[in-house]
Amino acid sequence: MPSAAILIADGTEEMEFTIAFDTLVRAGVACRSLFVPDPASVTADAPVPLYATCSRGLRVVYDATLDIEAHTDFDALIIPGGAKGAETLSKTLTVQRLVREYLEEGKLVGMICAGSLTALTAQLPRQPLTSHPSVKTALENDFDYSEDPVVISGKLVTSRGPGTTFPFALTLVSILCGEQTRAEVQAPMVFPTGTPF
Amino acid sequence: MPSAAILIADGTEEMEFTIAFDTLVRAGVACRSLFVPDPASVTADAPVPLYATCSRGLRVVYDATLDIEAHTDFDALIIPGGAKGAETLSKTLTVQRLVREYLEEGKLVGMICAGSLTALTAQLPRQPLTSHPSVKTALENDFDYSEDPVVISGKLVTSRGPGTTFPFALTLVSILCGEQTRAEVQAPMVFPTGTPF
Repeated sequence: MPSAAILIADGTEEMEFTIAFDTLVRAGVACRSLFVPDPASVTADAPVPLYATCSRGLRVVYDATLDIEAHTDFDALIIPGGAKGAETLSKTLTVQRLVREYLEEGKLVGMICAGSLTALTAQLPRQPLTSHPSVKTALENDFDYSEDPVVISGKLVTSRGPGTTFPFALTLVSILCGEQTRAEVQAPMVFPTGTPF
Repeated sequence: MPSAAILIADGTEEMEFTIAFDTLVRAGVACRSLFVPDPASVTADAPVPLYATCSRGLRVVYDATLDIEAHTDFDALIIPGGAKGAETLSKTLTVQRLVREYLEEGKLVGMICAGSLTALTAQLPRQPLTSHPSVKTALENDFDYSEDPVVISGKLVTSRGPGTTFPFALTLVSILCGEQTRAEVQAPMVFPTGTPF
């Protein structure tokens, strides 16, 4: 059974997180949600909370806090967007190091929306990439910027926003589990006739 | 500011819950998540947990447990799917009573996926309706069953599954907040070109 770590922080976009998590679980991927605290919010007096407060107020109980020593053995690493959450994830050195290590080991890395900023902060080499339009200017000089809904560049898969999270997650399923599993996961979700993926 | 109560139970489909919640918050709707316990799981020794465990394992901290006296004053009531969650919601008498009261008062009621079973258990009159295909046979004799992605019947809006939750939620935004707000919410979600809603 493939496995995936899906990162979450305060301010993560809850639709992007949840659609990725749920779609991968439906495909049989063992998913773990790993919380990355905002360094500014962690003090001796304020312990790390047991849930993430997402961008529109949804509170998600996570499985564990990110521990770089313990979390190198998943088959995929996924970084959702949400402006504040993606800022925390992309600026966290351990996240940047994990992204580089996963790609160097030929493992799958997915970034969506403002989560794609992590490609910049992890200093990944120039390659095709997309993101939410709101962070395009931060990325277009260092990457071959695309406006496709999902961009596959080797083992780096990037996407744009909540409206592209289903094709993003289904693309991850295709890569991790194959096209037949993708079809089995996609059909009972009942997408409207004419959906372009 | 319009308000909406979004019901949640153990086994609720987390994508359907989260997309509805997040999309309505983006539209400026004041959303509250209200937990409905499975009667079988509530005993004196096992207090109601502080979060719902959704259909694919996501744990969502809810705002309050459903209290029929306190929760009659929202502008909309939304019932997500997920087989086990929808069974709990649809079989709960207070949910059935709230659905009837909301519709009698001309307020909006949304049901998606197996959540549409609540139209049957609340004994709503025959009218156009859709649901997840897996519960079609339970509904098609008592309603004018449709396979459209979103069905509007007066103030009852029904839909099919995770793949139709975006057009379902955006339809609720259109009704509660108007078409201009819907357009302002939909654009930054970055749906793929050719998306049929």
